Amino acid sequence: MTQKESGAVPKANGGRAFTHQDHTVTVRKKGCHIVYMEVYCLTNSQKKLRIIPLGGLEEIGMNITALECGDDIIVVDCGMSFPTDDMLGIDLVIPDVTYLKENIGKVRGFFITHGHEDHIGAIPYILKDIHVPVYGTRLTIALIENKCREHEILESVDRRVVQYGDTVRAGCFSVEFIRTNHSIADSAALAIFTPVGTVVHTGDFKVDFTPVFGDAIDLQRFGELGKQGVLALMCDSTNVVRDGFTMSERTVGKTFDTIFAENVDRRIIIATFASNVDRVQQIVNSAFKYGKKVVVEGRSMVNVIGTASELGYIRFPENTLIDIEEMKNYPENQIVLITTGSQGESMAALSRMASDLHRKVSITKRDTIIFSSTPIPGNEKPVSKVINELCSKGARVIFQDTHVSGHACKEEIKLIYTLVKPKYAIPVHGEFRHLSEHRELVKSLGYAEENIFVLRSGDCLELTPEEGHVAGHVPAGGILVDGLGVGDVGNIVLRDRHMLAENGIVIAVLTLDSASGEILAGPEVMSRGFIYVRESEDLTREMRDIVTDCVDRCRGRGHIDWNKIKTSIKDDLGLYLWKKMKRNPAILPIIMEV
Amino acid sequence: MTQKESGAVPKANGGRAFTHQDHTVTVRKKGCHIVYMEVYCLTNSQKKLRIIPLGGLEEIGMNITALECGDDIIVVDCGMSFPTDDMLGIDLVIPDVTYLKENIGKVRGFFITHGHEDHIGAIPYILKDIHVPVYGTRLTIALIENKCREHEILESVDRRVVQYGDTVRAGCFSVEFIRTNHSIADSAALAIFTPVGTVVHTGDFKVDFTPVFGDAIDLQRFGELGKQGVLALMCDSTNVVRDGFTMSERTVGKTFDTIFAENVDRRIIIATFASNVDRVQQIVNSAFKYGKKVVVEGRSMVNVIGTASELGYIRFPENTLIDIEEMKNYPENQIVLITTGSQGESMAALSRMASDLHRKVSITKRDTIIFSSTPIPGNEKPVSKVINELCSKGARVIFQDTHVSGHACKEEIKLIYTLVKPKYAIPVHGEFRHLSEHRELVKSLGYAEENIFVLRSGDCLELTPEEGHVAGHVPAGGILVDGLGVGDVGNIVLRDRHMLAENGIVIAVLTLDSASGEILAGPEVMSRGFIYVRESEDLTREMRDIVTDCVDRCRGRGHIDWNKIKTSIKDDLGLYLWKKMKRNPAILPIIMEV
Repeated sequence: MTQKESGAVPKANGGRAFTHQDHTVTVRKKGCHIVYMEVYCLTNSQKKLRIIPLGGLEEIGMNITALECGDDIIVVDCGMSFPTDDMLGIDLVIPDVTYLKENIGKVRGFFITHGHEDHIGAIPYILKDIHVPVYGTRLTIALIENKCREHEILESVDRRVVQYGDTVRAGCFSVEFIRTNHSIADSAALAIFTPVGTVVHTGDFKVDFTPVFGDAIDLQRFGELGKQGVLALMCDSTNVVRDGFTMSERTVGKTFDTIFAENVDRRIIIATFASNVDRVQQIVNSAFKYGKKVVVEGRSMVNVIGTASELGYIRFPENTLIDIEEMKNYPENQIVLITTGSQGESMAALSRMASDLHRKVSITKRDTIIFSSTPIPGNEKPVSKVINELCSKGARVIFQDTHVSGHACKEEIKLIYTLVKPKYAIPVHGEFRHLSEHRELVKSLGYAEENIFVLRSGDCLELTPEEGHVAGHVPAGGILVDGLGVGDVGNIVLRDRHMLAENGIVIAVLTLDSASGEILAGPEVMSRGFIYVRESEDLTREMRDIVTDCVDRCRGRGHIDWNKIKTSIKDDLGLYLWKKMKRNPAILPIIMEV
Repeated sequence: MTQKESGAVPKANGGRAFTHQDHTVTVRKKGCHIVYMEVYCLTNSQKKLRIIPLGGLEEIGMNITALECGDDIIVVDCGMSFPTDDMLGIDLVIPDVTYLKENIGKVRGFFITHGHEDHIGAIPYILKDIHVPVYGTRLTIALIENKCREHEILESVDRRVVQYGDTVRAGCFSVEFIRTNHSIADSAALAIFTPVGTVVHTGDFKVDFTPVFGDAIDLQRFGELGKQGVLALMCDSTNVVRDGFTMSERTVGKTFDTIFAENVDRRIIIATFASNVDRVQQIVNSAFKYGKKVVVEGRSMVNVIGTASELGYIRFPENTLIDIEEMKNYPENQIVLITTGSQGESMAALSRMASDLHRKVSITKRDTIIFSSTPIPGNEKPVSKVINELCSKGARVIFQDTHVSGHACKEEIKLIYTLVKPKYAIPVHGEFRHLSEHRELVKSLGYAEENIFVLRSGDCLELTPEEGHVAGHVPAGGILVDGLGVGDVGNIVLRDRHMLAENGIVIAVLTLDSASGEILAGPEVMSRGFIYVRESEDLTREMRDIVTDCVDRCRGRGHIDWNKIKTSIKDDLGLYLWKKMKRNPAILPIIMEV
């Protein structure tokens, strides 16, 4: 075991500039411990700390922040986000890391707070280009490894496992991992010791006094750091609009017990987030208590639970876990099925069960289905659809009271501020409404407005112990991933997709004699997504006539200008269809010359 | 004024068959009263009542139900619904009324419970084809008239205004309008007296003991009907998943007062549903109390408030209402702006203000914006977007505690059952999950499962006093309206729109010599919504080569089969793009012959 090095890390300086400093840090790389010891002087450029969020502000997801001091940059998290409704056909969105690439020589490491997609999801894309170590706790690194394995880049990524209390040296920075609670095990906050002062980044967190696995958040360490002096706090804003305290994960376990007791004669199917290992543990506990066997279903659920189980983050009592193939050997009411699909994702296991597309599970009126989750904003309708399908098969559906959030509410956030007492507050992880509400909360704690920085992605916040201000911007924003293409779908393509989605496309094609302008073939008029062609022959004929008229009119003027013909076809067909049908399809005239 | 005719209407018979019956009813048509008196015998076919929901089940919206007895059909409501996410480009959805058209000779009238879109929205489409009287309370008919005027069919629709307590004779049916409470004034439940027994249809309702306008729901009449005996209750399920009692509309007024007091020095902008006249009245009351002027903005808001004001459903104290043009004559903090856009609709007034597109209102940090609404499921993200935009302009945004629902929660629904004590329960207005939960609620009141009918749209429920069962189905479902086209966009067009939205389209076009099969022009490869062409010249060249190869290969086999060439282009291009990019655009090969 490593010793805790907190005694040896630099003392935070509460807003006074460092002069020089001893650093003793422990890095664990594949089992071997290396101890660095170094004395250095503060250069001029190290008197300023630059905090540059490249994502995660003005949005939920895609969390990534660079901290820069002198010739060193470290990066906190490297997440993806899911496409918004207007990003038609896009699979996922990753941050623009142009700034990191341009300063690649300075980048000393990525520090990952926990293993959720919005904190690790962009790693396979970004660490293809940037070869620096990635630090995280055990489960976090294991989930990153799963991801890199899928993308076949495992060998080229330098993973470093750290434990809570460890401090990692990276250039002029030292980063300590602090235990927190969240909806995934092994979550960490970071204390980032910089020449300018200490920055505390909470990561995603909640305060759970009675967690299911491991200990409560290390509030003592937050207090200790605060006592020593903290320059800035970057604190999770996800739940800042909610009053009070987030309930303990353990309360959900009690609810499961009650539901299991009320459904002893039924098969129980529970949908939850694959990564919520503690939730799964509690389901397993209830199942064991009521003598039921547990089946785990859904690709990501099997993956995460497999990894968590190998690493000892979840324990199955003997003979409790069975394979889905063994289900048939047990009476229905002895089965508890834990599955993906709590967000109504159309290809997830539960959705396939609901719509009779699952090969091994059919829903009947003897099933009780529990949604141990709340819909992420935007997913309300798909979730409702699945619930309706399940209800229509006669199943009993429970979708309330079996979920607690993984994020801190107002009182928890106030608690962290009261322990850490930073000079500057930098709300992170949230849309503008969350960040604004966070600012109001911090003001209510007595902070002056000029010490609170509500940033936008790409802002470069420059901090000294005396003051802070936004000093410039770097490129930031989402890069769209569509299939294997990264960044090749932009605004023009998306605008076209919208137009096609709303009204379809009408294509008018004809072959002209290049000399005489005579029509040699066509015009043909085709459409996709516009109208059912077989039932609209008259319309097609009229459109063909309009195209012919356009050509004749343009030819009549003597000199034949292909572009004029095209523009005229577009205008005339567009006007005709708008007048006749109040529709606006994309119109694509194609003229071939022979 | 008309006298209340409840003494003269047939007594409901609590499940015993009628033999013959006196009917005295009052119909008010453009001010003149007609009194019918008639004695008739029950024919054989009148011994059965058929209840046929044509919409409104398995979905929220598009409420319409036919009741058929002997040679008579009446219709309750005639609503539209909004397109679901998969209905790309669709403007609205109306019910399939094939059954009514096929039995047009039997249809005696449409009885409308209230003036919301999901109860009146399809009238302009359906009453184009079906010419029968439409009955409703005053505001309901006024809103229907606005709608018909827009569609230029006002003159051809036979509108009849009724008052609470009035009973309308329609064939062998008599229909009494009963006062209820809801989020729009003049809402009614219907007591439908039929030869088989009495059916009570609640419409949309809540129980508000202290409504803002008019009286509380006529619970006495519900009790009286119940005492006389009710065959079936068709009860609103929208809020059946919520425990307890829906709060009174009046509670919102108190919250407005508090917020106005806290924001005396600021301009207040309130977004709410245009049709919630009582909500607007309460905002006006608070504004008057705090000496502010009221501006009404947004087309539907101006329309509805205009109509409600003319009819006396809302009262503006003198000099309170000002035109938007007059705003500039008053200090900002004397202004209250009531606007549309509470659902984040992109073209609504509030959304335009938020994104700087409103010509007369700019949002500043001196504005307090109140969302007096909750997002309808599916609208969470657009609402969030608007809130973020408002916050980013520094405005204060309040989006909690200033809304109550217009629908009954569990305890109110139990109250209605306890008063009406129907023999049969037919849950209406809800998705399957709501109807299922409604069934459980009714069972908890002691009802046997066989007396509860959870129907699907199109089911024909046959009821006698002795028993009920689903005896067949009629066509039912949504007809899609896209621009001026009603029903011309079907599954194939929607499937194409999905494909185009996800991946765009690639068009390969070439002109061949019809005799030799030689390529005379092209191949050209174009795309829309697939990739930005100017940055992908190599890809375009490779695609052209693939098309040329296909033609050469097919020509090489001797006889030239145009369809084979097309299929080969589709397959080869598709495979190439999938392998290279993991994308699946629609591929449209076009071959012109000369």
